[in-house]
Amino acid sequence: MAESLSQELFQAIVDIPIIDPHSHIDPFHPVSKTLDDILNYHYYTELAFSTGMDKQILEAGNDGDIPHRRVLAILKQMKRFDNTAQVEWFLDMCRSLFGLTNEDILNDHPETLFNRIGMVLQKSNWEEEIFHKTNLQAIFLTNEFDDPLTGFNSNRYIPCLRTDTLVFRLHEPEVVDRLEKVTGIRSLDRHSLNLALGELFSHFRHHKAKACAISLPPNFAPIEDNDSLHPTGVFWQIAKLAQEFQMPFNLMIGVNRRVFRNGVYQGQDLFDQRTSLIQFSELFNKFPHSSFPISVLTSNQNQELASYSWIFPNILTHGHWWYSNVPAYIKNDLRARLQMVPKTKQIGYYSDAYKLEFVLPKFNMYRRILAELLAEEWVKPKKISETKAIELANQVLVGTTKEIYRL
Amino acid sequence: MAESLSQELFQAIVDIPIIDPHSHIDPFHPVSKTLDDILNYHYYTELAFSTGMDKQILEAGNDGDIPHRRVLAILKQMKRFDNTAQVEWFLDMCRSLFGLTNEDILNDHPETLFNRIGMVLQKSNWEEEIFHKTNLQAIFLTNEFDDPLTGFNSNRYIPCLRTDTLVFRLHEPEVVDRLEKVTGIRSLDRHSLNLALGELFSHFRHHKAKACAISLPPNFAPIEDNDSLHPTGVFWQIAKLAQEFQMPFNLMIGVNRRVFRNGVYQGQDLFDQRTSLIQFSELFNKFPHSSFPISVLTSNQNQELASYSWIFPNILTHGHWWYSNVPAYIKNDLRARLQMVPKTKQIGYYSDAYKLEFVLPKFNMYRRILAELLAEEWVKPKKISETKAIELANQVLVGTTKEIYRL
Amino acid sequence: MAESLSQELFQAIVDIPIIDPHSHIDPFHPVSKTLDDILNYHYYTELAFSTGMDKQILEAGNDGDIPHRRVLAILKQMKRFDNTAQVEWFLDMCRSLFGLTNEDILNDHPETLFNRIGMVLQKSNWEEEIFHKTNLQAIFLTNEFDDPLTGFNSNRYIPCLRTDTLVFRLHEPEVVDRLEKVTGIRSLDRHSLNLALGELFSHFRHHKAKACAISLPPNFAPIEDNDSLHPTGVFWQIAKLAQEFQMPFNLMIGVNRRVFRNGVYQGQDLFDQRTSLIQFSELFNKFPHSSFPISVLTSNQNQELASYSWIFPNILTHGHWWYSNVPAYIKNDLRARLQMVPKTKQIGYYSDAYKLEFVLPKFNMYRRILAELLAEEWVKPKKISETKAIELANQVLVGTTKEIYRL
Repeated sequence: MAESLSQELFQAIVDIPIIDPHSHIDPFHPVSKTLDDILNYHYYTELAFSTGMDKQILEAGNDGDIPHRRVLAILKQMKRFDNTAQVEWFLDMCRSLFGLTNEDILNDHPETLFNRIGMVLQKSNWEEEIFHKTNLQAIFLTNEFDDPLTGFNSNRYIPCLRTDTLVFRLHEPEVVDRLEKVTGIRSLDRHSLNLALGELFSHFRHHKAKACAISLPPNFAPIEDNDSLHPTGVFWQIAKLAQEFQMPFNLMIGVNRRVFRNGVYQGQDLFDQRTSLIQFSELFNKFPHSSFPISVLTSNQNQELASYSWIFPNILTHGHWWYSNVPAYIKNDLRARLQMVPKTKQIGYYSDAYKLEFVLPKFNMYRRILAELLAEEWVKPKKISETKAIELANQVLVGTTKEIYRL
Repeated sequence: MAESLSQELFQAIVDIPIIDPHSHIDPFHPVSKTLDDILNYHYYTELAFSTGMDKQILEAGNDGDIPHRRVLAILKQMKRFDNTAQVEWFLDMCRSLFGLTNEDILNDHPETLFNRIGMVLQKSNWEEEIFHKTNLQAIFLTNEFDDPLTGFNSNRYIPCLRTDTLVFRLHEPEVVDRLEKVTGIRSLDRHSLNLALGELFSHFRHHKAKACAISLPPNFAPIEDNDSLHPTGVFWQIAKLAQEFQMPFNLMIGVNRRVFRNGVYQGQDLFDQRTSLIQFSELFNKFPHSSFPISVLTSNQNQELASYSWIFPNILTHGHWWYSNVPAYIKNDLRARLQMVPKTKQIGYYSDAYKLEFVLPKFNMYRRILAELLAEEWVKPKKISETKAIELANQVLVGTTKEIYRL
Repeated sequence: MAESLSQELFQAIVDIPIIDPHSHIDPFHPVSKTLDDILNYHYYTELAFSTGMDKQILEAGNDGDIPHRRVLAILKQMKRFDNTAQVEWFLDMCRSLFGLTNEDILNDHPETLFNRIGMVLQKSNWEEEIFHKTNLQAIFLTNEFDDPLTGFNSNRYIPCLRTDTLVFRLHEPEVVDRLEKVTGIRSLDRHSLNLALGELFSHFRHHKAKACAISLPPNFAPIEDNDSLHPTGVFWQIAKLAQEFQMPFNLMIGVNRRVFRNGVYQGQDLFDQRTSLIQFSELFNKFPHSSFPISVLTSNQNQELASYSWIFPNILTHGHWWYSNVPAYIKNDLRARLQMVPKTKQIGYYSDAYKLEFVLPKFNMYRRILAELLAEEWVKPKKISETKAIELANQVLVGTTKEIYRL
C-alpha cells in the first residue's frame, strides 16, 4: 500500500516544474559536452581518488585523449564505490536523460558508453531538451561579484551574488582591483567599501539577481561591526545591503576549506560538527526584515536549524547540502522539518549542480524521499488527503522559493 | 500487520491511567476558559509570529474582544503552518475533547469553532470531565518557591519545587525578600541560605511535593561549592537537600534564554547543540543516593543521556522536551532508550502543559510512537509477546514514575 | 515481502565465515568456563549495578560459591533491564549456542540454567565447537605490548598491538621497564624510544600481528611531534612505524576514562559528544600511505566519519563501538555509510568480545540490520539484485578486512 501510494505521489510531484534555488551552473556552458564533463564532477573524482585511483589522470587537464582516458579509468574505478548515492545519481541520469537501461550501463564496454552518451550530449538542442526532460523552469546561479551578468536568459538562469571572496579575501590587492573594476570605487576604507558594495548590489539587482549567498566555516560568529574591513565587518555590511535591497541572504554554514591538502580539486573540504547557529544570534536579531535561507553541512545541526526557523521569522530551512545530501540524512532531516517548521518557511531542495545533467537525478532522489514521507507519515495514517499532500510538496518544492525570492 | 498490531497496542496503552510527571498547570486555573487560552499557548503564537503575523494582537492582553480577535487571526494564520506537529495536537484535541471532526475544524467558520469550543470549555464540570476523558490520575506542577501549596487537591496536582529563581537570581534583593517571607530566614550568607533552603524543602515536603526541578543553560557545569552564593553554590546546596529529603532532582538541560529578543512571550528561547553531560559528572559522582531524572533539549544529546543512564544508578531518562518533542525526534530517541536503558530507569513522557487540554493530545502523540516501536521492533519480530509489550509500556509510562517519586 | 526478503538475505549472509577484526579475547582462555564468565561481562554488571544491585557481590572475586551466587543475583536483577539489546545478546546466545528456547530461559529456575549452560561450557572441545557454530574463521586480539605472542594459533587468533599504555603511561617507570624487557632498549629519550618502538613493531610483525590500535579521549588532537616523550610524541612515532610496517592503525576515538568513579569494573567510562575528526587532520595529511580504520563512540560523529572516509584514501569506517553498538544507532550509521562510503573502505563489524560466546550474538545483531537495510533500501526498490546485495554484504563483512589487513 504505502509503496504504491508513494509511487503515485512521486509521479504527481514530478509533474511540478522545478525551480532550482542554488547551483553552480555556468550560464554560458550549462551542459556537458562529453561524459568527462559529467564524471569529472568532484563527487566522482574524490571517490575515485579515495578508493586508490591515481591522481595524475584525475588532474591532467583536457588535452588530446585525456578526457577519454579519464572517463574509462573512472568507470573502471567505480566498481569500488558503486554502492554510493553518488553513483545512483549517475545511473538515474543515464536512464532518465540518456535512455539507457541498467543493463546497458553495467554490461556495455565503457568505450561504448562514452560514445553513446557523447552522441546525446553533442545534440545541438541538448540544452533545450534537458530543460524539457528535467521539467526545469529556472535555476539560480552563484556568481562571483565580477561575473558577466548579460548574454544569457536571466529568467532561466537567475543571478545570485556570491560574497565569499569579498568577505574573506578583501585583504588581497587583486580583489580590491577587481571590485574597483566593477564598481568604479576603490575600497580603501570602510566608507569607500560601503559605497562599492552598494554599487555592486545595485548592479546585481539591475541584472535581476534575486539573492546573495556565502559559505562559512564552522567557527564563524559574526558580530556587529560597522567600522572594519575584517571579514566580520564586510559580512555585516553585506547583511545590511541584503536587507536594504530585500535580497535573501543564503547562509551555507559549516565548511572547513582545504582540510585534505592533497585531495583532488574541490575534494579537500570537510567540517567540524561542533558548530551552532547561536553564533549567528546577533545577526538574526539585528536584521529582522531580512530573509536568511540557511543550509547546514551536518545532520547534527538540523535540529537547531528547524528550531531556529520555527521561532525566527527571518530564518528558513534551505535544502540538504553536500555531506548531508544523501538519502539517510535527507530523510531524517526532512521528516523533522515537515513536523517542526512552517511549510511556508521551507525551501525544500536545490541541486548544487555544476552541469544541468545533475538537476534531474538529484531532485529525483529528494522527491522520492519526500513522496515516501508523505505516504508513510501523512496520507496513510489519514492525517491529510493525497491532494493536500501534493499541495504540501508543491509548497516546499516551489511555493516558498517563489515567495521568498519574489519570482 | 504491523499497523493493525500497532493500533491494538495503542488501544491497550491508552487504557493505562496517565500520571503526568511534569507540567506548568496552575492548580487554581487548570483548564482553558476560551479557545484563546488554548491558542495563546506559545507553541502557536510563535509559529504565527514566525510566519509573519503581526505581534501586536499576539501581545495585546485580554481586554474586550481581543481574545476573540486573536483566535480568529491565529486560526487564519494557521494555514501557513498547518503541517506542524503542534497543529496536529490541536486537531487531536478538537477530536478527542471537543467531539469535532477534521471536517468541522477545516470547514467551520473560525467564528463557529470559537463558539462551539467555548461552549464546551464553559461547562461547570469541565475540569472533572477532562480528567475523565484524559484518563488522568495525577499531574505534577512546577511551583515557584513561594507559590501557595494549599487550596487544591495535592493528590491530583502534585507540587514540585522549581529552583531556577533561587539558583540564578539570588543576587536580586526581591528574591531574597521573597525567600525570607516563605522561610522566615534572611539569606545574607551561605550559612543562612542553607538554613532557608532547608526550611523551604521542609515546607514543600510537608505539602506533599515529590520533586524539585531546574532548567539549565547549555554551558552550566556545576562543581562542588560549599561556600558561595553563586549559582553553582546555590545549586550544590539544593542538590544536597534533594538527596537528604529523597526528592528526585529533575534537570532540564540545554536552554538558552532570550536568544530571540523580539520573540513572542515564551517564544524567545533556543539552544546551543554543543553541550555535554560530562559537565555534570562531579554532581553525579558526589550524590550517589539521589535521583536525577534528566531531560535534554536536543536529540544529539540523547545518546549521552541513554549512555549515562545505562551506567549511573542515579540517572534516569525523562521525557522528550520542547524542541525534541516532535515525532521525528521522539521516535529516534525512544528507540535508543528502549534498547539501551533499563526499563526501570525510564520516565517515558510528560506533557509540559500549561492547560489540561494539552495532556491528552501530547500523550497520544507519544503513545502512538511507543505503540509503533513496540509493534515493529518487539512484537512482530517475536522478541516479546503483546502482553509483555504492554507491561513494558506500562513501566515507562507510569511504573518508573511511581517508584522514583514514591507515589 | 521486505520481511521475508530480509530473512532470506540474513540466511545468505550468515553463511559467510566471520573474520572478527577486533576483540579482547585471551587466546589462552578464549571461552567461558561457567555462566559467570558470561554474565560477569561489564555489559551486564553495569546494568545490574545501575538498576540497584549491590556492588559487593559484583566485585567479590571468584572464590568458592561466589560465581554461582553472582550468576543467580544477576539473573534475578535482569528482570529490571530485560528490555535492553545487551540481554537480547544473551538470549540469542542461549538459543544459538546452548540450544535453549526462550521458554527455557524465562521459566527455568536460575539454578537449572546455571547448570545446563555450565555443562555445555565444560565440554572438552567447546572451543572447536564454538568456532564451528559461529562459523568463525579468525579473530583479532588486542595485545598489550608485552603479551606473549606464541603458544596459540596465530592464524585463528591474530595479534594486534595495543598502544594505549605506551602513549599515555610512558612516564611510569614500570612501563619503561616493561618496554625494556621486551625490546632490550631503555627508553630514556626520544631517540632510544624510537629504537625500542621499532624493535616492538618488528617483534609483533614477526609474530604475524596485522594491526596496531589505540583508544583515545574526546579531546585528543595529535600534532607532529618528533622530539618529545609526551603522548603526542609517542603517538606520532607509532603512526610513523605503522605506516612503515604497513600495519593499519585502528583509532578508537572518544572515550573518557573513569567518569563514574564508583562504577563497576570496566563500567566507569563515558564520553563527551563534543569531539571532531578535524582534530586528526594533520595526522591524516601526514601519513597518506597508512590506513586508519576508525571507530567513533557516538552516532553524532558518524557523519564526520563517513565524510572523512569518503574523501581521504587512508581513512576507513570501522564497526560500531560500545555505546553506538545497539540497533538504533547501528541502523542509522550503517545506512549512511552504505550510501556515502565506498564499499571497499568499510569494515562492517567487530565483536569487541572478551569471550568467544559473544561473537555470534553480536554479529547476528549486526547482520540482521544489514539484511534489513539491503532488503528495504536496495533489493526491494530494485536498485540491485539479491546476488549483488549478498556480494555487498560480503565486502563489508570480510572483503575489506582481508584487503586492508593483508590476510
